[in-house]
Amino acid sequence: MRPSRRLHIPAAIAHPVRLLPLAFLGLILIGTLLLLLPIARSGPGSPTFLDALFTATSAVTVTGLTTVDTGTYWSPVGHVIILLLVEIGGIGIIALATILGLFIGGRLGLRTQMLAQVDMHVVSFGDVRPLFRRVTVTLLSFQAVIAVVLTLRYRAAYFDSWLESVWHGVFDAVMAFNNAGFSLNTDSLATYAGDIGVIVPVSIAVFIGAFGFPVLAELYRGWRRPSRWTIHTRLTVWGSFLLLAVGSLAFLVIEWSNPSTLATQPFVDKIATSVEGGIMTRSGGLQSFDWALVRPETQGIAILMMFIGGGSASTAGGIKITTFLLLAFVILAELRGDPEVQIGRRSISGRTIRTALSIALIAVMLVVGSTLLLMTLSGASYIEALFEATSAFGTVGLSTGLTPHLTAPSQLLLIGLMFVGRVGTIAAASAFVLRRRQPRYHLPEEQPIIG
Amino acid sequence: MRPSRRLHIPAAIAHPVRLLPLAFLGLILIGTLLLLLPIARSGPGSPTFLDALFTATSAVTVTGLTTVDTGTYWSPVGHVIILLLVEIGGIGIIALATILGLFIGGRLGLRTQMLAQVDMHVVSFGDVRPLFRRVTVTLLSFQAVIAVVLTLRYRAAYFDSWLESVWHGVFDAVMAFNNAGFSLNTDSLATYAGDIGVIVPVSIAVFIGAFGFPVLAELYRGWRRPSRWTIHTRLTVWGSFLLLAVGSLAFLVIEWSNPSTLATQPFVDKIATSVEGGIMTRSGGLQSFDWALVRPETQGIAILMMFIGGGSASTAGGIKITTFLLLAFVILAELRGDPEVQIGRRSISGRTIRTALSIALIAVMLVVGSTLLLMTLSGASYIEALFEATSAFGTVGLSTGLTPHLTAPSQLLLIGLMFVGRVGTIAAASAFVLRRRQPRYHLPEEQPIIG
Ligand SMILES: [K+]
Ligand SMILES: [K+]
Repeated sequence: MRPSRRLHIPAAIAHPVRLLPLAFLGLILIGTLLLLLPIARSGPGSPTFLDALFTATSAVTVTGLTTVDTGTYWSPVGHVIILLLVEIGGIGIIALATILGLFIGGRLGLRTQMLAQVDMHVVSFGDVRPLFRRVTVTLLSFQAVIAVVLTLRYRAAYFDSWLESVWHGVFDAVMAFNNAGFSLNTDSLATYAGDIGVIVPVSIAVFIGAFGFPVLAELYRGWRRPSRWTIHTRLTVWGSFLLLAVGSLAFLVIEWSNPSTLATQPFVDKIATSVEGGIMTRSGGLQSFDWALVRPETQGIAILMMFIGGGSASTAGGIKITTFLLLAFVILAELRGDPEVQIGRRSISGRTIRTALSIALIAVMLVVGSTLLLMTLSGASYIEALFEATSAFGTVGLSTGLTPHLTAPSQLLLIGLMFVGRVGTIAAASAFVLRRRQPRYHLPEEQPIIG
Repeated sequence: MRPSRRLHIPAAIAHPVRLLPLAFLGLILIGTLLLLLPIARSGPGSPTFLDALFTATSAVTVTGLTTVDTGTYWSPVGHVIILLLVEIGGIGIIALATILGLFIGGRLGLRTQMLAQVDMHVVSFGDVRPLFRRVTVTLLSFQAVIAVVLTLRYRAAYFDSWLESVWHGVFDAVMAFNNAGFSLNTDSLATYAGDIGVIVPVSIAVFIGAFGFPVLAELYRGWRRPSRWTIHTRLTVWGSFLLLAVGSLAFLVIEWSNPSTLATQPFVDKIATSVEGGIMTRSGGLQSFDWALVRPETQGIAILMMFIGGGSASTAGGIKITTFLLLAFVILAELRGDPEVQIGRRSISGRTIRTALSIALIAVMLVVGSTLLLMTLSGASYIEALFEATSAFGTVGLSTGLTPHLTAPSQLLLIGLMFVGRVGTIAAASAFVLRRRQPRYHLPEEQPIIG
């Protein structure tokens, strides 16, 4: 019975992998239709189809790239639609990634039993379901706390009315937690540049939101015992702090004397802005300064950060921290001559390394290919096109200002990149794991010369 | 006895790995001293130390990047010194790579016996030694044939004297075969742009020279039976043709209407120039057009080609075709769900994949890091800096014209890149293979979420 049962599995589990892109496509279409309503538009006339499609895609994929100014182009109704699309898109990606995890976990479990091998999983998804509600409640509570903090600060320093302060507080808290780069202000966070009372809570929300559900679930249960965390959680948490430190320090050093960013700021604000630069590039997408005016070296580092992204099954994009760090550990193992790739007294299988490598290289090809296409379509410079393409693929939402000036084909390209960046890496990684077959026979090995 | 014997091996074989950089350092120093002689300089005064060091490094690493105009800055004596440095550097890299191969082959053989596994090697190096002389003679004969063809063409169309024609013919044939981008003409091959009588023999020499010794040795013995070639030879030969086709076609399509390159040329010359663009970017470094005037998309593709480079143990640089194609086959295996990475009825071990991955990623870090540093040091744009850094690392020698205008720190950076690009990938790959240890125990596996 076993072989035939094994043959039936792919058809059964193909479903959740296909569900992911279809659900997002449906949500984007609904969002586009809603945004096409005249009441969604501020001022006379309807939005153009392309602007509605771009905004809906950007919202559902929790990116934040925009072809129009969010604050002035859309009406309050439009803003609510965007807010809802971001919340549904953000929760949707977490839920679907978790469902995929359940299926993959089950399938791998079966596979494992058949092979009678020991295979420890990241999170035992079986007991996660009761946690889901409690974690969601915790997340929403955390969003509420951030919203309250922001509201109080906005009322104290920026807005005369409580209604406006609450609305901005809620909107920004939701955007921050979902790692979506939309802002009601034309200049994103620039109004609050150097205001620690705004930048710090927003940055904390973005940073924690980018951990992803499996990590948050594990932290929820056992954050006091880092030594018992799974490899996945350790890589994600320590990796997040490492990338934050590296990104912020690089930003601080390179931008120190740049009059458009840090040079004019007092010391504490220099630190806050640098930390913001380190956090927002890995998918937050909010900005308190103009990315067109930072030094090209900083743009280069931001591109790397945007490409790496955040945690798996999170609202952050990119190839994900675990994918990136696994490849780093491969190099470390090679430098040390280790027979196995080891992380914290655990070994990583060759199959997992192959999957990480494939995801990373396919992503490189996609971003580089899109960059060349974007250059051809728009006449943008290499770094401008690379920045915007990486921001779209990584669903980051940072921009040097290129997107609004692009023609329709270029904007459609970015729409495609946001969609593929959002569902593509998760779907591809899941499909790769699910398609793994066991060898029926071994071919003789041969070793080409490398390097 | 076995374990102690095994412990002694690393010390013994560390020698050839260390020999490689030391030999090249020594040769570069000798070259620098020779070029500092006043008779090496055309016109009054001695060359500056930096120009001599840069030229010697560029010659020994068979690159071709220059800070000064080779034809007018150096005297005929200087040209002979450069010619000799290129020949010695080119033959040296082939010989040392072969010696390393012998040692690695022997070590792997021992390892293999200990494990009682079957391990087929690329080339059985044991019987290569008698072949070495015959292949070298064949290579030199081939160089001589190209030199004669070029001499006749030069005499017929460009120079009045036979002496000048012979000198240019010999110089260009040696440069082409050694994949060194030096030219006696200020504009490299531009004088001969569209002249098939020059471009074709030079391109053939560069293309075959980039195969590398192991491939040439195997082709020498059995070129009639492609089905019996080793995986290494198959990857290198078919990969070379594939990259040639892709690179040339991309060049033809993108540059078709560019008045600075193809637009003004008749159809046959368009084809010839495109093929040249496809060949020279993978390490030849000679150019019949100005790389500063090609479209940025073409520069982007050229950067990819320069990064990939040529065959292992050849005078070409880059991460090497086999390294690149192995990673492509990993993706293919992952897409197909294959349990093993297979190439032509042979499987590739996880260790080999790890080595390829490490070489490629270290190279990416090196080139990207150098690019950011070069931007900071020189104020060059991202694409200019990336082009020059990749050209130096890949020991290609193509230039958009940035190098001569760089300050001393930037030129020193390029000197370092050429050196590391030449000996680094070979030394690192050898060291990785030699350092491989067998597992004493297995750690439990754990699988982080990817993507
Ligand atoms: K975002
Ligand atoms: K070269």
